[in-house]
Order: sequence, then structure tokens, then C-alpha cells
Amino acid sequence: MADQPTDLPTPYLAVDRDTLDRNIATMATLGRELGVFLRPHAKTHKCRQIALRQLEAGAVGLTVATVSEAEIFVAGGVADVFIAYPLWVDSARGARLCALAERSSLRVGVDSAEGARAMADNTSSRAGLEVLIEVDSGHHRTGVIPESAGEVALAAIDAGLNVRGVFTFPGHGYGPARAASASKDEAIALFRAAASLRSVGVDAAVVSGGSTPTAALTASTTLTEMRPGSYVFNDAQQLEMGSCDLAHVALTVAATVVSRAPGRVVLDAGSKVLGADRPAWMPDFGRLYDYPQARLSELSEHHATVSWPEFVPAPDLGAVVRVVPNHVCSAVNLADELVVEAGGTVVDRWRVVARGANH
Amino acid sequence: MADQPTDLPTPYLAVDRDTLDRNIATMATLGRELGVFLRPHAKTHKCRQIALRQLEAGAVGLTVATVSEAEIFVAGGVADVFIAYPLWVDSARGARLCALAERSSLRVGVDSAEGARAMADNTSSRAGLEVLIEVDSGHHRTGVIPESAGEVALAAIDAGLNVRGVFTFPGHGYGPARAASASKDEAIALFRAAASLRSVGVDAAVVSGGSTPTAALTASTTLTEMRPGSYVFNDAQQLEMGSCDLAHVALTVAATVVSRAPGRVVLDAGSKVLGADRPAWMPDFGRLYDYPQARLSELSEHHATVSWPEFVPAPDLGAVVRVVPNHVCSAVNLADELVVEAGGTVVDRWRVVARGANH
Repeated sequence: MADQPTDLPTPYLAVDRDTLDRNIATMATLGRELGVFLRPHAKTHKCRQIALRQLEAGAVGLTVATVSEAEIFVAGGVADVFIAYPLWVDSARGARLCALAERSSLRVGVDSAEGARAMADNTSSRAGLEVLIEVDSGHHRTGVIPESAGEVALAAIDAGLNVRGVFTFPGHGYGPARAASASKDEAIALFRAAASLRSVGVDAAVVSGGSTPTAALTASTTLTEMRPGSYVFNDAQQLEMGSCDLAHVALTVAATVVSRAPGRVVLDAGSKVLGADRPAWMPDFGRLYDYPQARLSELSEHHATVSWPEFVPAPDLGAVVRVVPNHVCSAVNLADELVVEAGGTVVDRWRVVARGANH
Repeated sequence: MADQPTDLPTPYLAVDRDTLDRNIATMATLGRELGVFLRPHAKTHKCRQIALRQLEAGAVGLTVATVSEAEIFVAGGVADVFIAYPLWVDSARGARLCALAERSSLRVGVDSAEGARAMADNTSSRAGLEVLIEVDSGHHRTGVIPESAGEVALAAIDAGLNVRGVFTFPGHGYGPARAASASKDEAIALFRAAASLRSVGVDAAVVSGGSTPTAALTASTTLTEMRPGSYVFNDAQQLEMGSCDLAHVALTVAATVVSRAPGRVVLDAGSKVLGADRPAWMPDFGRLYDYPQARLSELSEHHATVSWPEFVPAPDLGAVVRVVPNHVCSAVNLADELVVEAGGTVVDRWRVVARGANH
């Protein structure tokens, strides 16, 4: 990547278009090779142009996390959306789901009998609305235990919903050397959940899982569909886990050196631009793309404090450097637009159309 | 606070107007009693209505962190703004500063001779532009050592800038039982910095410091001006430090219970709404306003996973609860509006007009 291809005011989010397109193509190829549908999670990019590139490369539809994300992407022309979340559906949310189901293929997550009944009670015209039962594969967040999937499916069917299968998110695969065992957990949980559905006479046509670190591992064994998100951009977490290398990082934050002291360089990108994500297994708050030895050791709202090793020449005051955020989904959700670069120049700007669409 | 005063879709940010006004009045009174000007930091609320309330209560002006925040508040009628940041001023940023200085009293931070020269070189018509020299009082982020303040001030004056004094941010006062010693560091650093200016013949008319935890401590000894921010809302960090109690928390995030399992309740407010801030000294990712024994132990983008003690009845699926975010400045910067409540009903909605204005 070029050092400073624009004179835009920093900080801003820069996307390397060629790297992005390579990442999209690689995951699409993986899906085809494994015979698994690819339904990428759009919460990572929240951007219509990237969704359309994913669909064009062969994705069957999108995954989203919220009703408002679904509304924005359906309005933007996406015809097949899965809200991979156990929504609590009151009358207002039910009306929004019905409106969506009229315009697109719509799937929604369910992880309780009560949730299924609330959804059914508040969706009067739900032709086209399908549900998947969420199971907990070890992340211990949402989802029922796999053996209860059949029971929840029956309750959903009793309530009048159209159950199409099961899904999980193996979030416990995030961390160094965790992906392989989480992927095994995911495969077993989904296998048992599908069996639980069949044991009560419900078909599990859809078996959906996958995250960026586990995508290649689990997809080869169990899934009919995978839902990776971060792979389009990658980030410092994916680097730390070894699920990508620097050549696959398609998004960086351009930041200016505003202050220097011995052993220290301070940049104008803080947590309000990079996001404050730092799980216990991450050593720092991000990485510098061009300075692997520098450590982004402290982050405040408008400053990144970088510990600079004595033996590496530090950039001058006013220099622009590239920061790889820890968690790219968080950084994107803080931005109004992505500055798109190719060959070292700005070629486009894409609006983060679903920024803040978190309800 | 009422349990669910509205049928707005969760998650959303709710401000208790009476608590907000009490917090604003209390800090204004403290400033008056100590004989110190109050210049609250607007990065916390990014909201015109709250800025105007602070000014009406007696604040002399606002502090902001970025040029774009300054532009938005000056456009909104604020006549006196301090950008408490060592800006690197290129020609584009210089033009923006000149435009601001024409419309308002404008102060900007400087912490290097090079930064001062860049600012002077790129601000052709800078009548009304004043600078304060930033010193490091122990937070080790931006700022020169206090003994170098005079040298930087002389360089700034040589470059043609109007130096009015010194400032610091005692950020190392964040943490349990750290405020008193950080406040002492702050007082000593500012005293030495002002002396350093005087030793080279420069008056230090402005001695500016203060954060919410240290405001009352340092202001009584050294400052001419204090710049607390978080006090308008408070948050779980301020609770943890003991700089406020629950009755002073004016902002909470309304979230719906979407999933339950033994010992676990999952809410629909994640890091994209609450912010992911969790310094090492914070036990959790936020607090539940009405359930002090529950622990917000995990946070993902769209879920808060709450460890629920066996002996406390858990809220039902679909119930709306109030979350106190760890760092309110981050939560506000993720929202487009604040839902204003009084007496348990919604009385207004305020736009977070400077959301994302981080450049």
C-alpha cells in the first residue's frame, strides 16, 4: 500500500480494492470447492457495493445481525437475507419483518419456544418467512443445546412458523489455536441439532455455520451454508489467529503522527475510529501495516499511543501511517464512508450505508 | 428510572433529563465556588442541546477534540472553543482553522516546535487564534515535559502564534484510587509548565486541566480553567472509580432480553452500541442499572452476555433493561440520537450532531 495516496483529512478508512476483490473471490471459490453455499455476514462491511460484489462472486444471499441491516440491504437490491439472531419480535418488529418478507426471501433465528410464539403472534402475513433454530456450539451466548433443537422446532411449527433447519456461530473459535477445536464443536453441535430435528419429524434442509477462522475447517464436514464476515477485509485479530497474512488485509485506517517523544509516537486515530476491541488474547490495540515492530500499546478516544522501538526509525511528525484495526467490524461501524483505493490512488468512496443500523 | 417508558426499538440511548441537568448544575457550582472557569469537553455528548445547557449554566466555552467537532459546535452557535489536541496542521486543516477563528474565539493545542511552525505556516489569517502548550503530567500520551513548555512556547511565538498558557490532561487518574495522586501530578506539572513559560518571558494566563475524576481535586489548587467531560452523563467507569454514584448516571442503554439459559441472560445491545471499552481495571463490560448483582461478562457486536446469579430472579424474555455503559463517550459516538426522558416518559430526541466528527 502507498504511504499517503490522498490529501484527505485523517483519520479515514481506506480499502484496497484489489485485495478486497481477491478476498471475496477466494472465499467464493472455497465455497464452490466444498459444495457449500456462501452467505457472507454483511455486519463487517455494512456497505452495498461490497454486498453486490459478494453476490456477483457467487454468494447466495447475505447474513445480517439486525432488522435494520436487513431493511437497508433489501432496499439496496439484495433479495435473500438471513437475520442470524434470535430476535424478540414485538408488534412493531413483526410488522417490519412482514414488510421485509414481502420483498425478499427472509430467514430469522429462533432459540426459544417463547421467542417463536412472539414471532408468530406478531407476523400476520408471513409467507416467505423461514426460521432456523439457533444452537450453542460452545460459545455460550445465544442458542439452545443441540439436543433441544427439535423441541424448539416443534414449538415454532406449532406456533405456525416454517422451520428450515439449524444454525450456530462458533465464536469460541476466536483466539490463537482455537479454530480447529471450535470447528469440531461446531460440526458436532450442528450434526446433533439436525438429528434432533429429524427425531421429531422436521427436516433440516439448512445447516448453517461458519466464521472467518473456522470457515474452511467446518464447511468441509457438515455445513450446507457458511457465513463468514471478516474475510472481506481481515484485521489484526485475524492476523493474530493466523487466519490471514498481511497481504490479505484490505482495510487500514490512515492516521497522522501528531506527537513524538522518546520511545513513543502518537497518532490521531483513537478508539472512536479504530474501535476499542481488545480481547484478552490480543497483545495490542491494532497494528501498524508498515512497522511490524511498533506496538499500539494504548488507545484513547482520539489518540493511539505507539511504543516505538529504539532501533526502528520513527516516522516524522505529520507523516501518515496505516493502522490495521483489531476488529474491522467495529471500525467500519464508526465510519460514514470507505475511501476506495487502487494502485495507490483514490478510485471511489463507498457509503457505509448500514452504519449504526443496530436495532 | 422507569423500566420501559417507550415502545422504541431497542437498543437505544436514553438520557434522564433531570439527572443530566443536576450534573450540569453541580459542576457549574463547583467551578464558581473554586473560582475556576468551566470549559466542559463536548466529546462526551457531541450534542448541541447539551452544550447550550452547559453554557447557560455558566461554562465559558467548550472543549473539543477535533476540528470537525469545533466546526459543528461553532455552526451551532458556540462562540468560544478550545481544541485540546496537538493538531498537525496542513494547508487544508489550516484553512479550516482560519475559517473557525473568524467566527469564534479559538484555542488550539501545541506540543512541539515543528507542530507550531506547521500551524503558523498554514494559517494565513489567524487573528483570534490562540494556542496553549500541552504538557505531559504523567499520562504519557501527548504533551512535552513541563520544563520544556517555555522552549515550545518561544518556538510558537517565533513562528507567529499567540501563546496564552498551558494545558494537560491527567488521564492517568482513570482507575480506582488513582485520582488523588494524578491530581497532584497534574498540579505540579502545570505549576512547572507555567513557571517554564514565565522563565522565558511568556505569560501563562491560562492554566487548563481537569478530568471528571480529578476536577474537584486539582481545580482547588492550580487551575484557571477545568475541562471535565463525562460528568454530564457519568458511566460504569466513573462508578467504579467512585467519582459518582448511581443517582448521577444520566444515560443508559435500553436493551431487550433476547435469550436466556441457566445462569445467563443475553441482551440485544453489544459493542456496536455500548462500545467495547474495558480497561484492565474494569471488571465487566458495563453494568445493569437495576440489577447490581448481574455481571456483564461478555460483549460481542450485537449481544451482551450477562452472568446472572442464581438467587436473583432474571427478567423475562422480551423485557427491557437498562445498561450503564463502561465509557459513555464511546457509546454516544455510536448513536445518531439520544432519547430524552423525564418522569418516565419521552420528552424529546436530541441529535448527536457531532457523531463521527473525529477528524
